[in-house]
Amino acid sequence: MPEYKVPLRDMRFVLNEVLDLDAHYAKLGLEEVNSELLNAFLEEGAKFAENELAPLNRSGDEEGCHFEDGVVTTPQGFKEAYAKYVEGGWPAMGGDPEFGGQGLPGSASIAISEMTGTANWSWSMYPGLSHGAVATIEAHGTDEQKQAYLPKLTSGEWTGTMCLTEPHCGSDLGILKSKAEPQADGSYKITGTKIFISAGEHDMAENIVHIVLARLPDAPKGTKGISLFIVPKFLTDGNGGVGERNAVACGSIEHKMGIKASATCVMNFDGATGYLIGPENKGLNCMFTFMNFARLGTAIQGVAHAELGFQGGLTYAKDRLAMRSLSGPKNPDGPADPIIVHPDVRRMLLTSKAFAEGGRALVYLCAQLGDSVKLGKTEEEREEAHELMALLTPIAKAFVTEAGLEAANHGVQIYGGHGFIREWGMEQNVRDARISTLYEGTTGIQALDLLGRKVLMTQGKALRNFTKIVHKFCEANADNTDLKEFIEPLAGYNREWGELTQAIGLQAMQNPEYAGGAAVDYLMYSGYVTLAYLWALMAAKAQEQLAAGAGDEAFYNAKIKTARFYFKRILPRTAGHKGAIEGGVDSMMDLDAEHFAF
Amino acid sequence: MPEYKVPLRDMRFVLNEVLDLDAHYAKLGLEEVNSELLNAFLEEGAKFAENELAPLNRSGDEEGCHFEDGVVTTPQGFKEAYAKYVEGGWPAMGGDPEFGGQGLPGSASIAISEMTGTANWSWSMYPGLSHGAVATIEAHGTDEQKQAYLPKLTSGEWTGTMCLTEPHCGSDLGILKSKAEPQADGSYKITGTKIFISAGEHDMAENIVHIVLARLPDAPKGTKGISLFIVPKFLTDGNGGVGERNAVACGSIEHKMGIKASATCVMNFDGATGYLIGPENKGLNCMFTFMNFARLGTAIQGVAHAELGFQGGLTYAKDRLAMRSLSGPKNPDGPADPIIVHPDVRRMLLTSKAFAEGGRALVYLCAQLGDSVKLGKTEEEREEAHELMALLTPIAKAFVTEAGLEAANHGVQIYGGHGFIREWGMEQNVRDARISTLYEGTTGIQALDLLGRKVLMTQGKALRNFTKIVHKFCEANADNTDLKEFIEPLAGYNREWGELTQAIGLQAMQNPEYAGGAAVDYLMYSGYVTLAYLWALMAAKAQEQLAAGAGDEAFYNAKIKTARFYFKRILPRTAGHKGAIEGGVDSMMDLDAEHFAF
Repeated sequence: MPEYKVPLRDMRFVLNEVLDLDAHYAKLGLEEVNSELLNAFLEEGAKFAENELAPLNRSGDEEGCHFEDGVVTTPQGFKEAYAKYVEGGWPAMGGDPEFGGQGLPGSASIAISEMTGTANWSWSMYPGLSHGAVATIEAHGTDEQKQAYLPKLTSGEWTGTMCLTEPHCGSDLGILKSKAEPQADGSYKITGTKIFISAGEHDMAENIVHIVLARLPDAPKGTKGISLFIVPKFLTDGNGGVGERNAVACGSIEHKMGIKASATCVMNFDGATGYLIGPENKGLNCMFTFMNFARLGTAIQGVAHAELGFQGGLTYAKDRLAMRSLSGPKNPDGPADPIIVHPDVRRMLLTSKAFAEGGRALVYLCAQLGDSVKLGKTEEEREEAHELMALLTPIAKAFVTEAGLEAANHGVQIYGGHGFIREWGMEQNVRDARISTLYEGTTGIQALDLLGRKVLMTQGKALRNFTKIVHKFCEANADNTDLKEFIEPLAGYNREWGELTQAIGLQAMQNPEYAGGAAVDYLMYSGYVTLAYLWALMAAKAQEQLAAGAGDEAFYNAKIKTARFYFKRILPRTAGHKGAIEGGVDSMMDLDAEHFAF
Repeated sequence: MPEYKVPLRDMRFVLNEVLDLDAHYAKLGLEEVNSELLNAFLEEGAKFAENELAPLNRSGDEEGCHFEDGVVTTPQGFKEAYAKYVEGGWPAMGGDPEFGGQGLPGSASIAISEMTGTANWSWSMYPGLSHGAVATIEAHGTDEQKQAYLPKLTSGEWTGTMCLTEPHCGSDLGILKSKAEPQADGSYKITGTKIFISAGEHDMAENIVHIVLARLPDAPKGTKGISLFIVPKFLTDGNGGVGERNAVACGSIEHKMGIKASATCVMNFDGATGYLIGPENKGLNCMFTFMNFARLGTAIQGVAHAELGFQGGLTYAKDRLAMRSLSGPKNPDGPADPIIVHPDVRRMLLTSKAFAEGGRALVYLCAQLGDSVKLGKTEEEREEAHELMALLTPIAKAFVTEAGLEAANHGVQIYGGHGFIREWGMEQNVRDARISTLYEGTTGIQALDLLGRKVLMTQGKALRNFTKIVHKFCEANADNTDLKEFIEPLAGYNREWGELTQAIGLQAMQNPEYAGGAAVDYLMYSGYVTLAYLWALMAAKAQEQLAAGAGDEAFYNAKIKTARFYFKRILPRTAGHKGAIEGGVDSMMDLDAEHFAF
């Protein structure tokens, strides 16, 4: 299995050069955060990811998690790596300083999340889910709740989960059944079964704090009758430690296609003691705090698997000898040429590279917007960032994970038959990637969110805000002949995107199914155009650095060449998605459910 | 896991109605073969596939094959199912009557191969590979060799393998190293290591006959120095039974992503006794006999996984309740609507259905052409069929398996998070499907074969032969207003296909890399257009039957509606592939191998 090497140079390019985080932090008034500090984090994070986590990736997959009598044991080395992670202070990076956190903004830790996740996605699920619980308690908890849970969750000594899904409902949370009965002491008894609870039970932390969706007695039906509860595995002892065991237990763990070292638990709440967090019946609204976070976290997974597919494929493509180059031998003294000489192998490598690097830029941009949503100096600044982030989050989540899955499959394909063999690690990358387009809202759900809620329900306002940014960028670079190959097509696609959206909007007014039929193709179209903008942005920055004589010429030239590949060979896919949308929805709705098969 | 139900109605539609096999057999002078006989086979085959093989599909995946001291044990039930298969006379269907075969043409057994393969692809690899060995010995063996091996191979008491790949070479067989030293008795001592040998060792048959590629001493370098040898696991005893054990042994089996119940063996030949088959140094030419067969066999796998993804997805989509239809509740008394009401779920189901049924038509058409290649009454007829089959085989192999993999992934996606869980079987379908775009020549290799060897090297002749057939079909139906929605776009794509090919040819004359860069997109483009032809053909037949009042209206209407979906929603993908091709190859070749990563 090829070793994972953290792409530090590329991370820094996006963070420091493209997104200019130094200026961003200055604008937000975060004097203590700057690129020098971030660089130190990146170096340390890379060591941890490469040396501690990556070596456990394949062994964790082979061993999987163990379940016996309610106890989950993680694969060898996982617990120890987690202890080192806590010891290193990593969980506390983004936490509230009041509770022991370092108070760093999201953009400062996004690259750390990427590197730990790429090194070992299964492992990174344990601390990853915890962040969601922390964010929820920070946003909606009472002072007492914060005091009780945040210190240990922030340090990582405890971990957290999000308990949403039930056996009969995933995306449609409105029909969930778990119950919460009020008790005389102000607490609640929580009863119900939750499934697909990542890190619901494990052996890494002394306590696990579940955030649980449940219904109060006589709550309204549907999504407006759901409340949120804190249900710890062990009740607190009032001194910051753990007390009595609560009536929540893991019933079993799932046997899955991939991320096998991540414990996916069935959690049984059997009159467990819980504490209401946030207002009654407003649980779903409170959950949104967490959901954008979780979606961005899953978008990182797309980058992770694209990067692994790319790195693994590249190593093999340079080593493996087969056939001769179509333009004459490139390794005349050897029995054959390395397969990286073949155009189709390069097509797969460059596609994966373009997705990994383009996806990285998109995800980091979302993290930067997240900072502004939270810390922007004016209401207007916060609102603007919020709108843009709301638009880009479903694109980042769904498009980047679809792209990651494609790249992971290219990784296998480059290895030929060897890609199918476990020891090379490329097939694990596909299996691990496969969950990313499913959980935290499938691609179909993200697409409905994008087209329905974000675009059509705002009468296109959120999209116009973004296409305006793209338009301004194109205008600003209109006279730069070196960028013409990017700016001209980008401006065209940016216009076409608006027109396509309008056309869909008109059709959807006649037929509500139209938007549903268009949604996934629209999301993919939007993803390709969004990435085109980011690639043009990166090419412009690379060209600027070359013109300024910043050194690193090979790196900047490679950026420009990859942007060119993206525009020439990947962006044309938009035509297929546009054509499919224009094919309309009638041919999809016309067939009676009973006549699909005979 | 949803039960597999053999789509008998659809198989009969393709065989009897679309391809009109009765007329085809009459033309070939095969009086004893007809649709009545085939129908009986289909019924029996379906029982065997559904009752004997399908139940072992998931258990075989969970258990896998066992290896100990050179002995391979197949999962529980595999051996017994194979014994029943032999007892039922199934292996002999296509065999030469002189050696106990039933002499049926390939088109008569293709549906049986599809149903056994879909029920349990791993299991079907054991008899499947055997057919290749049989075909090779039938075509190139001496009378003595035929007498020695064909009776038991035909009956299925023995099985066969094809030993091509070595650790350092797969597609590039020119660099293989296995050696064959001539012995005084006319036999050879074969020495070398072969990998990825499916069914190389197992416990189902009393003998295994390996067909092995190796080099004679002083053979020319490259592909012109390879010869073919028969190397049986047990030497024959001269009376049709087994004698002494030969020096060939299984060194290990691979741990794979999928088809885990199929033993993928490392085979060590340690001075094993072998017999030359076919002329010296012409081994690769002889292999071609087998290769088209094997490619078509792999194309079936695309149909298999598309069908399983479709059937599994359909079952779940009708059962699972989530959300309400965008056009109002369809299940008002339930807590939510079945997800089949949602356009995006229908998009995935219809895509899978269109691939399964369209792929089936293409693969069966290839099998029909295979009959004509072998049994055509005139040289011209045989040659014409051969040219067309040569063109369509790489399309069938690569496009149908890519489509199968996509459909298998849709199957997972329709299940949401549950698709990732092993017990539902949908993730196994993806893992099993993943090999199909890799073995028997990757998609990239098939694409080079199609564009390079089949299209450009014939100056487009093979393609023109096919586009002429499509053109004639369009002409013949030009006045049929009911078919206009299919005929008009098909005629346009058929023209565009020719133009695109010419444009590529011109570019490739300037730059040999151009074709390499275009190949996979060209293959996908060609696949979509080829399937469009088959869908138009099926729609025309369905419409004809409706007009004739043949009954079965729901079935024929579903055909037409699926054709419409294919034309409206799938065929536009061609624009993406065409655009990518037109993006050229420079952006792919321009990046130095050392500058892919920093």
